[in-house]
Amino acid sequence: MDSLSCPFPIQQYPQVLLAHGGGGKLMQQLIEKMFTQAFGPKPASGLHDSTVLKLPANKIAFTTDSFVVHPLFFPGGDIGSLAVNGTVNDLAMSGAKPLYLSLGFIIEEGLSMEVLWRIVGSIKKAADRAGVTIVTGDTKVVDRGKGDGIYINTSGIGIIEHGLSIVPTKIRAGDVILINGDIGRHGIAIMATRENLEFETTIESDCAALNDIVSCLIKAGIEIHCMRDLTRGGLASALNEIAQDASKGIQIDEASVPVKEQVASACAIMGFDPLYVANEGRFIAFVPEGQAAKALKILQNHPLGQGACRIGVVSDDPKPLVTLKSFIGANRILDMISGEQLPRIC
Amino acid sequence: MDSLSCPFPIQQYPQVLLAHGGGGKLMQQLIEKMFTQAFGPKPASGLHDSTVLKLPANKIAFTTDSFVVHPLFFPGGDIGSLAVNGTVNDLAMSGAKPLYLSLGFIIEEGLSMEVLWRIVGSIKKAADRAGVTIVTGDTKVVDRGKGDGIYINTSGIGIIEHGLSIVPTKIRAGDVILINGDIGRHGIAIMATRENLEFETTIESDCAALNDIVSCLIKAGIEIHCMRDLTRGGLASALNEIAQDASKGIQIDEASVPVKEQVASACAIMGFDPLYVANEGRFIAFVPEGQAAKALKILQNHPLGQGACRIGVVSDDPKPLVTLKSFIGANRILDMISGEQLPRIC
Repeated sequence: MDSLSCPFPIQQYPQVLLAHGGGGKLMQQLIEKMFTQAFGPKPASGLHDSTVLKLPANKIAFTTDSFVVHPLFFPGGDIGSLAVNGTVNDLAMSGAKPLYLSLGFIIEEGLSMEVLWRIVGSIKKAADRAGVTIVTGDTKVVDRGKGDGIYINTSGIGIIEHGLSIVPTKIRAGDVILINGDIGRHGIAIMATRENLEFETTIESDCAALNDIVSCLIKAGIEIHCMRDLTRGGLASALNEIAQDASKGIQIDEASVPVKEQVASACAIMGFDPLYVANEGRFIAFVPEGQAAKALKILQNHPLGQGACRIGVVSDDPKPLVTLKSFIGANRILDMISGEQLPRIC
Repeated sequence: MDSLSCPFPIQQYPQVLLAHGGGGKLMQQLIEKMFTQAFGPKPASGLHDSTVLKLPANKIAFTTDSFVVHPLFFPGGDIGSLAVNGTVNDLAMSGAKPLYLSLGFIIEEGLSMEVLWRIVGSIKKAADRAGVTIVTGDTKVVDRGKGDGIYINTSGIGIIEHGLSIVPTKIRAGDVILINGDIGRHGIAIMATRENLEFETTIESDCAALNDIVSCLIKAGIEIHCMRDLTRGGLASALNEIAQDASKGIQIDEASVPVKEQVASACAIMGFDPLYVANEGRFIAFVPEGQAAKALKILQNHPLGQGACRIGVVSDDPKPLVTLKSFIGANRILDMISGEQLPRIC
C-alpha cells in the first residue's frame, strides 16, 4: 500500500486538518477514500453508529489498549502493527480467539497524510496476519501541539471455545513457567531509535501476534493455568502481578532467561535491566509440571517460539514474592518497577 | 465522590506522573486505589489482560469513540459523562441494550489528580445511570505538552434482543422522522465555556444516555427503520449521511425543528447554524407513518423526550438530498458541513 495506491487525494490534503475529524464532508472523504479502502467496503446497509455482529459463541473476552508509542516507526514495527498485536495478545492471554477490533484514532492536526496511510496499511497487514477484522472506528483530530502525531486505541473481542479458566489465581505450586523467546528487544528497539543509537546490527522489536501460538497449546490439550504477555514493565512486572494476584511465590532462574547478547550490551550501555524492558511478542505460560515438556515442544515448533524455554516454577511459599536465582547462585527478590524506566514504548 | 473519599494518596501525588502509566508500582497503586475503587473491586481471579464475559445473547453491537472535548468540564456534563453517554448512545442507535464498556485513558503528565478523580466519579455516575459496567481499562501517560489534560476512549458492547434491523437502508418513502427534543445545546454550552461567553441563563449541554428512551420504543413494538444520535455535524450531517446511505430524499420542515430561543440567539451571535451544532442527548428516529403518532407519544412520555416532535419525512425522490422547507416557505438543500465548525466538542 504505497501512497500512489491510495484513492484519498493526498496531494490535495497532504496534512490532516481539524476538519478531518469534524463530522462533515472532509471526514466522510477520509473515511471513504482511505479507511474503508483499507479495512473493507462500507457495509451495504450503510455506515452506522455501531456494528452489529453475530458471535459464534457467547463466552467472550473483551479488552482495550491505547498506543502512544514514540517514535511512530521503529525497527520491526510501527504504532499500527503494535496497536493490532497488543490487543490481539491481550485477548490471546485469556485463551480467547480474537475476532474483531475497533480502531480509534486521535490525530494531531498537521500529521502527514502519507504517514497516516502508511499506518493504516500497517494496521491492515497486521490484522490480516492475526486473522482479525477491524469492524468499527472513530477519528478525532486535536489541535497542533495537543498530541504527538497520532495515538491509537484498539479494543477487541474474542471468543472462548474451551473450558479452561486462564487466570492468575489458577496457578499452583510446582507449575512450570515457560517463555516463548528472548526478552527486551521491543523496548531497546524503541529507545535506540529515539536516542539515535546505532549498534552493529539493528535490534528489531519482537512485535507479533501471539494468538496462533497460544491456540497451538490449547488445541494440544495443555491445561494452561495462566498466561501473560510481557509489555510495559517487562518480565519482572508480569511475574509480580501474577504472584500478588495468586498469593503465590515464584522462583526464576536468571541464567535461563534468554537475552540476546546485543540487547544485553545495549541495556548495559543505557542502564536498563532487561527483566524490566518491554516486549510485544513475548509471553509466559504457567503449565502443570506433567505437561511442561510437551508444552515446550509445541512452543519450540512454532515460528514465534523457537527460542522458547523454561525459566522458573511456582513455589509453595505463600508470600507473593518473585525470587531470582542469579548467575552467581545468590537469591534476590525481583521487585516490581517503581518509577518509569522507558516511557511511551507502547 | 469528593477528593476526601478517594483512597488514592492525592496529597502525595497531586499530579499525574509519567510513571503512573509505566506498568510498575505507581500504576498499580493508581489502578487499585482509584480506578477499582470507583468501578468495582478487582475480580477475585486477579486483574488480567482481558475480561471474560458471558453474554446473554450472541447478536451484539460493538462501537468505539474517543473523547477529546475541550474544556474538560462544561455546564451539563464533563468529558467523563460524555465518554459514557456517547458510546452508550452509539449502541442504542443500533437498537442494542448496552451492557459493557472499556475505558482507555490517555493522560497528559501533570494533570491534577483531583481532576482525574472527579472525572472517574463522573464516569461511574454516568455508567450507573445508563446501566452499563466498566469491565476493562487501560492507562497511558504522555509527556507534558503532548496531550491536553486527558483524552478518553470508550468502546462498548450491547446485546440485540429483537428482530429489527435498524440501519440507514431500511428507511422508506413516507417514513416519519421524529426527534426527541431541541437541538444545539451541547455545542453551544461547550463554545460558551471555551470563549467565556455569558448569557442570561447558562445553556446546559443535553448530554444524556438514550438507551432507556430507545428501549421504550422497541418494547412498544415500534418498527424503527433507522436511528441516529446528533453529535458532530449536528442534525444536518446525520440526515445527509442517512440520505446518502439509503439513496433516498429527505424533507425537513425548518419551523418544526425545536431550537431554544437562547440557543438560537447564541448561534446568531457566534455565527453558527443550529442545524450543524452538536448534541449529545438528541436523536432522530425514522418510523413507519402508521406508527408515528404512537411513537411520538412514547417519546413525549419519557423524561428525555418531553420536547419530542415530528420534523420531516422521507420523500420518494431517489436523489439523496436533504431539502429544508424554510420559515418563509422556500425550499433549500441542506448540505453536509464541509469544513470544521466547532472543533473538539466531543
